[in-house]
Amino acid sequence: MDQETTQSRPIALIGSDDLAALSSVVGEKGVISGADAEPLLEEWRGRWHGKPSIVLAPGSVEEVAQIVKICAAKKIPVTPQGGNTGLVGGQIPERGEVLISLRRLNRVRAVDPLDNTMVVDAGVTLSAAQQAAADVGRLFPLSIGSEGSCQIGGIISTNAGGVNVLRYGNTRDLILGLEVVTPQGDIWHGLKRLRKDNTGYDLKHLFIGGEGTLGIVTGASVRLFPQPAEKVTSLVGVSGPQAALSLLAHAQGASGGAVSSFELMGRPLIELCVKNIAGVRDPLDEPHPWYVLMELSSGEKGHLTGLVESLLGKAVEDGLVTDGIVAGSLAQADALWHMRHAASESMKAEGAQAKFDVSVPISSVPGFLATAETKVNAVCRGARIIAFGHMGDGNVHYDILQPTDMSAENFRARQSAIEDVVYDTIGSFDGSISAEHGVGVARRDDVAHRKSPVEMTMMRAVKKALDPDGIMNPDKLLSDLSPRP
Amino acid sequence: MDQETTQSRPIALIGSDDLAALSSVVGEKGVISGADAEPLLEEWRGRWHGKPSIVLAPGSVEEVAQIVKICAAKKIPVTPQGGNTGLVGGQIPERGEVLISLRRLNRVRAVDPLDNTMVVDAGVTLSAAQQAAADVGRLFPLSIGSEGSCQIGGIISTNAGGVNVLRYGNTRDLILGLEVVTPQGDIWHGLKRLRKDNTGYDLKHLFIGGEGTLGIVTGASVRLFPQPAEKVTSLVGVSGPQAALSLLAHAQGASGGAVSSFELMGRPLIELCVKNIAGVRDPLDEPHPWYVLMELSSGEKGHLTGLVESLLGKAVEDGLVTDGIVAGSLAQADALWHMRHAASESMKAEGAQAKFDVSVPISSVPGFLATAETKVNAVCRGARIIAFGHMGDGNVHYDILQPTDMSAENFRARQSAIEDVVYDTIGSFDGSISAEHGVGVARRDDVAHRKSPVEMTMMRAVKKALDPDGIMNPDKLLSDLSPRP
Repeated sequence: MDQETTQSRPIALIGSDDLAALSSVVGEKGVISGADAEPLLEEWRGRWHGKPSIVLAPGSVEEVAQIVKICAAKKIPVTPQGGNTGLVGGQIPERGEVLISLRRLNRVRAVDPLDNTMVVDAGVTLSAAQQAAADVGRLFPLSIGSEGSCQIGGIISTNAGGVNVLRYGNTRDLILGLEVVTPQGDIWHGLKRLRKDNTGYDLKHLFIGGEGTLGIVTGASVRLFPQPAEKVTSLVGVSGPQAALSLLAHAQGASGGAVSSFELMGRPLIELCVKNIAGVRDPLDEPHPWYVLMELSSGEKGHLTGLVESLLGKAVEDGLVTDGIVAGSLAQADALWHMRHAASESMKAEGAQAKFDVSVPISSVPGFLATAETKVNAVCRGARIIAFGHMGDGNVHYDILQPTDMSAENFRARQSAIEDVVYDTIGSFDGSISAEHGVGVARRDDVAHRKSPVEMTMMRAVKKALDPDGIMNPDKLLSDLSPRP
Repeated sequence: MDQETTQSRPIALIGSDDLAALSSVVGEKGVISGADAEPLLEEWRGRWHGKPSIVLAPGSVEEVAQIVKICAAKKIPVTPQGGNTGLVGGQIPERGEVLISLRRLNRVRAVDPLDNTMVVDAGVTLSAAQQAAADVGRLFPLSIGSEGSCQIGGIISTNAGGVNVLRYGNTRDLILGLEVVTPQGDIWHGLKRLRKDNTGYDLKHLFIGGEGTLGIVTGASVRLFPQPAEKVTSLVGVSGPQAALSLLAHAQGASGGAVSSFELMGRPLIELCVKNIAGVRDPLDEPHPWYVLMELSSGEKGHLTGLVESLLGKAVEDGLVTDGIVAGSLAQADALWHMRHAASESMKAEGAQAKFDVSVPISSVPGFLATAETKVNAVCRGARIIAFGHMGDGNVHYDILQPTDMSAENFRARQSAIEDVVYDTIGSFDGSISAEHGVGVARRDDVAHRKSPVEMTMMRAVKKALDPDGIMNPDKLLSDLSPRP
């Protein structure tokens, strides 16, 4: 899966006069080089390696626009970059692009608790944005593992998801307006803070999840929410994904939709966490084949613990839940979440892996898991399947570890067959082969291969319409439309 | 505002062989003519009059595609139509287009209460869709005045809003996937039922609110929600919009975001309802300058009435609310809503009117209302301003009635000046000149005039990319890109 891109196009040749013109736009402190540039060039797992012609960190939206205007005139490709936490290679300039880091655009421009809106620069980190909302008693609900370093522009360009999607939606659902530098170097001042605006095509949705291939997001107006008055976290053991699904429906019904997280974890993940993560203990007295980490939140204080205890009691009675605990303190809740958040880390020492981030309709999660397990075993007997994720969104992180009695080399020889059966299974359940992480270069060819020709034709037409010279993050999301010599 | 379009292009000339080919696609029952066609040709307020070359009601998605394929080959323009309840003329074929009514595509294809999803044909009425969800104990929350006759395809193409947007969002927020016949006559099978799918540009958002100018929506997968366990409706008198705004923030904070409707109404509207609508009485003992109709809904039973009474008590204490009632029964709640829903009807007998459907950031509603009143009075002294609407969404229906001592003719002479000051005021608050109703032909030129050139250029590029021959609902939303002789 996550392979380095094939370099279908040679590294761009940018003249020294162009470099001088670009440098003069941002001044000395805006040209990043040497050791300062290193962290911007390497994908954090070492899978992609940047080879930009120059690294610029503009200090204003106008400087971004001037840079792009120069590049547009000379058809010089550019790659925008946020916190460099992306998982599919979209942020790495592999072939001489001008790398534009948004990190100096890091102002919170306005926070309005009456409107429940906030306007932020693209380079504000997600945790800084969360904090700015909390400072006025509001919630910016997006929460993902990399929130300390990922940036607003990056989460918008990748339509990030995370653990609160069930209740608050993906990034897409939290955006009211965008400011974008177009591939022509113009500034689209689209920072509306409106809940309703039917005055034409809703262009912002092209840039959200557009992975920087249609323009550069430089600012955003986002939705805020009241802080929940109360949260209750619980961990329960269930017999299987079907029981988990019934529990989700039961909990949503009994609480009127107050479930804010519903994370499914297979027993193998729990065992890896206990084995490889310091301080994690087996959470329930007996082992269970599957676990659900469930969080409910409410705007009213005082009712929720009783509600959760009563709904779990009924679930035990109905045979949906075999055992469980309700966190009695914030520390207990954090300990339960710690196990979930440590999932990726718990697998690190376990050898070669094939990792998938897929989604299916929520009700198809049990069917997908059963079918995929059979098919994966058929092509790689003994493969260790670590399935976990946001069941409430139908989003499964489906990681396959090499069998304990197989070499990494033999496992890798089967990797392409594993991909085929997983993707085919996803297709048979009308799912998505990239639920959260995006396309970038890692999934570009798989997406092109598996989406319908009608949809690919429309996507290419949109790209060609907005970026006719193909200078915006070329070869990411879509392969180059017009390869040049 | 709502003026008939100038006919910049002559009526299309379609040969009799083309008509025969189109007719043969749908068969006898699919060709609508004579008295059967009449209801499809007249805009319901008589503002636009259809002159189609033929009226077709295809019986399947495949027939829609075949029709469009024929039209694409001959560059024959088409206009899709849902329930013909649109307010801006988008559904009326004024110049010889092929009118495609979606009314025979009226199947509810699937309802899944576990997934909380439903898949419906474009021609299903909104009330039938609501009912299909209710039949399995779920809520399809969209609710608008025309729900008995408007159709899913139409509400998607106009991104309809309504009274539940504050809690559940606009139509856009309720759509998981679309099936679309493209301007080339291909079928895009995009009926995903996924909560997360990051595999490229999110094309469905172009068709949502696209007013049939980029393709024909033939089916949709939509989100369902748990039915709220309890609703509490109240009507309160307030001193002004600023107090209403504070009440909204207070109610959202005290209930943790449980406010599902928050409708502002000026005293003049109440007086017109009492005067012109049978059975409406002045709702509170004393008159108040402004009123708020507020509904809270909760997934838990039993708490809500107490919560509303206590938060209103606090609001009275804090001077936000001067008087109010909490509906004690469903009948009482319906009576309160009746007044709000009768707003348009209450104005019918009051002479010439200039009607606006605008939005501003929620916190700017008081400022907009104050500024607009001053400016409207400056160009039309004595104008009766009837302001009401979805304050929780920043969406104001701003209707200006002729002064009682002015002729309709004199009022109409000032109408263009009134439009200018209202739109200018909207612009100064960074608002939208069409919040809910869309663009169509009624607002097309105003939108083109008031949006930034950068945004208009992008919109035209998208139109040109997906519909290069301009056959899809030409001259709606955007003026013709390539006028033909």
